[in-house]
Amino acid sequence: MSDIITSLKNPSDEEVRAVDAWWRANNYLTVGQIYLKSNPLLREPLEASDIKPRLLGHWGTSPGLSLIYAHASRLIQKTGQEMIYITGPGHGGPAIVAATYLENTYTESFPHVTQDTPGLETLFRQFSAPGGIPSHASVTTPGSINEGGELGYALVHAFGAVFDNPDLIALSVVGDGEAETGPLEGSWKSISFLNPARDGAVLPVLHLNGAKIASPTVQGRKDPEEVRKLYEGHGYEVLEVEGDDLPGMHYRFAETLGTAYERIKEIQDDARTNGVVAGERPRWPMIILRSPKGWTGPDVVDGVQVAGTWRSHQVPLSGVRENPDHLKILEDWMKSYRPEELFDESGMPTDIVRSINPEGDLRMSAHPAGNGGGEYRALDMPNWRDFTIDFAPAERGTFRAESTRKLGEFLEEIYRRNPETFRLFCPDETNSNRLGAVFNASDRMTMEAVTDDDEKLSPDGRVMEVLSEHLTHGWLEGYNLTGRHGLFASYEAFGMVSVSQTVQHTKWLEEAIELDWRVPVPSFNILLSSTCWRNDHNGFSHQGPGVLSTIVNMRGNIVRTYLPPDANCLLEVSAYTHDTKNRVNVIVQDKQPQFQWLTPDEAEAHCRKGFGIWDWAGNEDPESGEDPDIVIACAGDVVTMEAVAAAQILRQQLPSLKIRVVNVVRLQTLSRPKDHPTGMTDQDFAEMFTNTQDVLFCFHGYAGVIHQLVHGRPDVDRFHVRGFREEGTTTTPFDMVVRNGIDRYSLVIDALNNTKRTVRGAADLKRWCTKQLDRHHEYKVEHLEDMPEITDWVFEA
Amino acid sequence: MSDIITSLKNPSDEEVRAVDAWWRANNYLTVGQIYLKSNPLLREPLEASDIKPRLLGHWGTSPGLSLIYAHASRLIQKTGQEMIYITGPGHGGPAIVAATYLENTYTESFPHVTQDTPGLETLFRQFSAPGGIPSHASVTTPGSINEGGELGYALVHAFGAVFDNPDLIALSVVGDGEAETGPLEGSWKSISFLNPARDGAVLPVLHLNGAKIASPTVQGRKDPEEVRKLYEGHGYEVLEVEGDDLPGMHYRFAETLGTAYERIKEIQDDARTNGVVAGERPRWPMIILRSPKGWTGPDVVDGVQVAGTWRSHQVPLSGVRENPDHLKILEDWMKSYRPEELFDESGMPTDIVRSINPEGDLRMSAHPAGNGGGEYRALDMPNWRDFTIDFAPAERGTFRAESTRKLGEFLEEIYRRNPETFRLFCPDETNSNRLGAVFNASDRMTMEAVTDDDEKLSPDGRVMEVLSEHLTHGWLEGYNLTGRHGLFASYEAFGMVSVSQTVQHTKWLEEAIELDWRVPVPSFNILLSSTCWRNDHNGFSHQGPGVLSTIVNMRGNIVRTYLPPDANCLLEVSAYTHDTKNRVNVIVQDKQPQFQWLTPDEAEAHCRKGFGIWDWAGNEDPESGEDPDIVIACAGDVVTMEAVAAAQILRQQLPSLKIRVVNVVRLQTLSRPKDHPTGMTDQDFAEMFTNTQDVLFCFHGYAGVIHQLVHGRPDVDRFHVRGFREEGTTTTPFDMVVRNGIDRYSLVIDALNNTKRTVRGAADLKRWCTKQLDRHHEYKVEHLEDMPEITDWVFEA
Repeated sequence: MSDIITSLKNPSDEEVRAVDAWWRANNYLTVGQIYLKSNPLLREPLEASDIKPRLLGHWGTSPGLSLIYAHASRLIQKTGQEMIYITGPGHGGPAIVAATYLENTYTESFPHVTQDTPGLETLFRQFSAPGGIPSHASVTTPGSINEGGELGYALVHAFGAVFDNPDLIALSVVGDGEAETGPLEGSWKSISFLNPARDGAVLPVLHLNGAKIASPTVQGRKDPEEVRKLYEGHGYEVLEVEGDDLPGMHYRFAETLGTAYERIKEIQDDARTNGVVAGERPRWPMIILRSPKGWTGPDVVDGVQVAGTWRSHQVPLSGVRENPDHLKILEDWMKSYRPEELFDESGMPTDIVRSINPEGDLRMSAHPAGNGGGEYRALDMPNWRDFTIDFAPAERGTFRAESTRKLGEFLEEIYRRNPETFRLFCPDETNSNRLGAVFNASDRMTMEAVTDDDEKLSPDGRVMEVLSEHLTHGWLEGYNLTGRHGLFASYEAFGMVSVSQTVQHTKWLEEAIELDWRVPVPSFNILLSSTCWRNDHNGFSHQGPGVLSTIVNMRGNIVRTYLPPDANCLLEVSAYTHDTKNRVNVIVQDKQPQFQWLTPDEAEAHCRKGFGIWDWAGNEDPESGEDPDIVIACAGDVVTMEAVAAAQILRQQLPSLKIRVVNVVRLQTLSRPKDHPTGMTDQDFAEMFTNTQDVLFCFHGYAGVIHQLVHGRPDVDRFHVRGFREEGTTTTPFDMVVRNGIDRYSLVIDALNNTKRTVRGAADLKRWCTKQLDRHHEYKVEHLEDMPEITDWVFEA
Repeated sequence: MSDIITSLKNPSDEEVRAVDAWWRANNYLTVGQIYLKSNPLLREPLEASDIKPRLLGHWGTSPGLSLIYAHASRLIQKTGQEMIYITGPGHGGPAIVAATYLENTYTESFPHVTQDTPGLETLFRQFSAPGGIPSHASVTTPGSINEGGELGYALVHAFGAVFDNPDLIALSVVGDGEAETGPLEGSWKSISFLNPARDGAVLPVLHLNGAKIASPTVQGRKDPEEVRKLYEGHGYEVLEVEGDDLPGMHYRFAETLGTAYERIKEIQDDARTNGVVAGERPRWPMIILRSPKGWTGPDVVDGVQVAGTWRSHQVPLSGVRENPDHLKILEDWMKSYRPEELFDESGMPTDIVRSINPEGDLRMSAHPAGNGGGEYRALDMPNWRDFTIDFAPAERGTFRAESTRKLGEFLEEIYRRNPETFRLFCPDETNSNRLGAVFNASDRMTMEAVTDDDEKLSPDGRVMEVLSEHLTHGWLEGYNLTGRHGLFASYEAFGMVSVSQTVQHTKWLEEAIELDWRVPVPSFNILLSSTCWRNDHNGFSHQGPGVLSTIVNMRGNIVRTYLPPDANCLLEVSAYTHDTKNRVNVIVQDKQPQFQWLTPDEAEAHCRKGFGIWDWAGNEDPESGEDPDIVIACAGDVVTMEAVAAAQILRQQLPSLKIRVVNVVRLQTLSRPKDHPTGMTDQDFAEMFTNTQDVLFCFHGYAGVIHQLVHGRPDVDRFHVRGFREEGTTTTPFDMVVRNGIDRYSLVIDALNNTKRTVRGAADLKRWCTKQLDRHHEYKVEHLEDMPEITDWVFEA
């Protein structure tokens, strides 16, 4: 090995010529994609008519991206190392597309983009064009698992990709623009969670080319000594390469990359031979590459410096169709790469160019890790029925249990059965969310020191806890996209912190399922626990059900939302969601003790359908053939309890009023089938909600979600939705529902106000409910001990 | 001054005794708030009945927070320094509430919480209790501008507070939990944007007590040398204090705080005397305080170590009501602070305790900066009418202009007139969003080196650009909450990156307006430009109108959303929003050239009302008294163009069909008045949308927003909402609207399908529209030059 590394660090002149040829070819193809729609090899004099009508793309970062790519390919060739390439500056898409084209992976994925002159023309024309391909290193780019559109996730995706992937190195390029984002800055600490024996490695390349779209970057202008200290402080060994001299940069970058690789292998060999010790986190290498923005591009245009400045960020020559001077500069620029050496007569890349490509799956654009692991592998799933709470139907609603604690036991068994392909990702709240049983199967992960006071904490741990939604979310994305399974569990309100990641990952999947060569990936599963209703103790900042309002707008073929009302339903839903592919599944359920409603059999039937009438909670006579006076619907655990309790009051006090209780677990079944693939049929909808009667809908989140979902159903004016109306503070659970008008007493009043039929005794009952509410409002600070908390209420059939 | 600093660094024993007394009093009050509902001074033996029924609060971080507070107060006393205290670990709320109580500010704000034994009992009972106060350093805590519930913003709020506040120091405590978040890690670089002459200073105190709720923190376990390097790499001079010895820690912390203060004054004196030079960023001090979690609390409970571990994070003794041993430990613990020395017979803090409090507004809890600057100060606003595009009504829709460019000119003048109280905050996109005129009035801000290639960049700059939505958003929050004005401008899709900050800031304002002692603060103004429809070139990741879907769920007394259709409307809306208080105003408008519809007079009338019939776009006869056949409504610039174009096709091709076009600028006017304060009356609603006719509503964002807003209006089934349905890629602007079925041709077909009246020629027109769409689909890659882009269309009256 040491011989190989020595030769890796000391490339021969011939090797450098080959790397340089590949690099020139890539740069040529990058410029071609941005500018040309014909004459791709400039075998005719360049004319204005060869130029695309609309010039799009980002040149500035591209030469750096392709330089790194070329040298990484050489490394793979020499070492057989498995590697993927994560493009932080995703807008350098043309460079990455060019790389995959040179590697032939692009043609394998899109056979119409052939390895010849017509194929080159297609490659150029399609870039950033309608009906063509996006301008980013997006899902259509073979080997990509990071779009780089919304910046900040290049590192966190890389780390997620290498967890439990011991043979893989994720080479992750971080642009100096992206380096300014919070999520990226927070990602460096991922090495505190990376086990060098069990996990693969991330090689970060911080590419400082100094400029963003219109101004310099912070790190591009910081004292290099200070930058070095920053990354040493993050725990890395910093290797630096700087310059724009050629071929000198090739020799220096090869040496640096070889050194980084040598360090990685040393770290891994040591760990895999001698074991891993808490508190002895390796000093992983990283590379800082300083090269000019728009390197090898136009130097001075119209008397203004372009190369090396922010003016190279996008399209450095914008007037080529109108301005013959610019056209000439473009032609000279493209010819400076000497395309005649790079593409043969037919337009195929020449041998010297192709000589840099690794073989088969070792090409970074073809590595299975960049495509869901190469094939979809299901989890070895335990039977959720082995973890249920068993009780007789007569016991329903008479006892409470922490539903997520049962989920924890289920996850524990999933951990045991899938020791390399399943992880829980949670911002320091695994115990708080009652999922602590997983610690019977696996510790929390840390590479930092462990003391006697710590519990369930070690480098062997595979439960991922760090106080960052961005990190935990992003790690799981990387883990998923490389074919492994997991669960992201967060406080409901703080699901909003990373909701843009949820949106972006959903968009990724929305595009991925359109590509037949992309294998399915495990679904991204989210558990939002510690919900708005039961963050009574933590206060208003912790009370926000906004994730549901965001996620229901995404495409229905990807997104599913679940609101299980109890433990058995949560188990069914969890088992189901972990068995799906290419989805974003959002489960919302609180961690506090809550009533248990459905036996395992009932839960199975109810959750598979996704909705159903709870006949035991209502009092209609199904034989009568008559619609009930009112439907009380509910979706969400706490509001279901209030709905059932309200129905009980109505049943007991006004038995002549006919009540139906409908519970909805799969929220999007409320949609019409044309709006969501799980939407219930018109007939099912009518069977649940009638076509004419008023529906009092008790919803976990903001009411607008239900208005949106039932839109288009018959006479939606009759839906009276009650939900979280943004009223909260530090208070009691019951006060939370009172404040939002969704407590049992308010619901009874509400139901009576919205029932068309006048029932004798209704006025009395409303007065009684009002009195209960008045009594509640009288208490508070003065009567801490006696706050009505409905703790003694139980369900009565 | 040097004498003062010398004495600051070398406290006398008497001073330390006083500081320690204040600290003990604070710790006592902290524990009391968590546990006691009676017997506040333990003048009777502690009984189980004195204990609250529900134990809430976070002890672990509190002693550290109050130690820092005490020493900062001493510094203020000795120096007269203006200072505010930002509590990152906001769940240490009881410590901060205790501090404000000891400073008497709490009693000034809440007179019923008196400075005596009954007042203490009230203070204790109300904490984390229904009808009482939240458990965080929330808006009800005098002097607080940072809740610390959703972690990550302690530093960014602090920097926002001191911009243009040269005399202010924001002491910002960062917990080691919060230090793990991305937004916090990304905030350290704020010193690259802080001018030591013009701005105040932030003194970060990284409080490493080692543990989160259930496990250690990353930095708590990192090698201290590595931690030091990290912050030196961030550009700070790192001062460290560690230990738990008393009174030793007081002496050492006093010395360290004095040193930090000395450095700040040196930096400021130098800058204010000798000027500020780009590239010579000062090395600002920061303090790393290592003290045990739960310091001074129970050491070992039930044989398990509590103090110094994660077990102290919340309530270290949980069984005090049931377990006499725990009760005894609590009593001993509280008495260890010697309350008899700290509170006099009446329960008032004793002289030695109060001797630490600074005078009047110098108390950190009373400083005006912690309360909107002490009073609301409006901007010196230019007249927006001086910046309009003037044209004759006959010219409407016949020419395009970049509307946000006009806004830029308006902002330029706002900058000029308000050189110390207005800033633009934008993630590196000021030029991209066409707001570049502001650079005529102010440069971009940097303290890093500036080169000849840079444009509009200097330490004197006050335009805030950094590639981080978290930073720019958070800075403006801090700037707003200290009484100054600004605008946060972002790409629409990436408004989601910081949307949780938008939500949390809205929640803050929702609570603040309930407190009569909180002065109004300038509104948080958001411009979402580069919208989903016109990110055709950037691709799917850049196409997301999710912010609107989130923000419309927040309380109506705070949130307003605006969708101006052209430049004059944008100017009116901007002028209006910058003149409001306590609001979150979201303006959505694209930056690309767009048709101009309304003259300044028309724009003024239209925007003030917020909605209106565009009679020139429809063809109904208002004199007829008859409802139109269909209402085409629109909200949003691009969709308005398509709606007007569709109406034009219908008018011209089927003149007998009566069309009304309604444009909505203030989105929430669609709500019922009971749902939103700006909601239109039933009469207005009927005048716009009739009570019976079908409405084809063309909306900028996800359709659900409109379904939600019109809910409860007459017969909402007749609203056919078209919006962004999550279809996108890198393509042309026209293809974007086609993909989402909201282009003019699809709208015409849609309108005809939803019109009750059968019109002769409708079938032909639908066929023609289908043909146009077919033609569009035929083009694409093969016909780049000829993609139908509707570029030659202009409005015809």
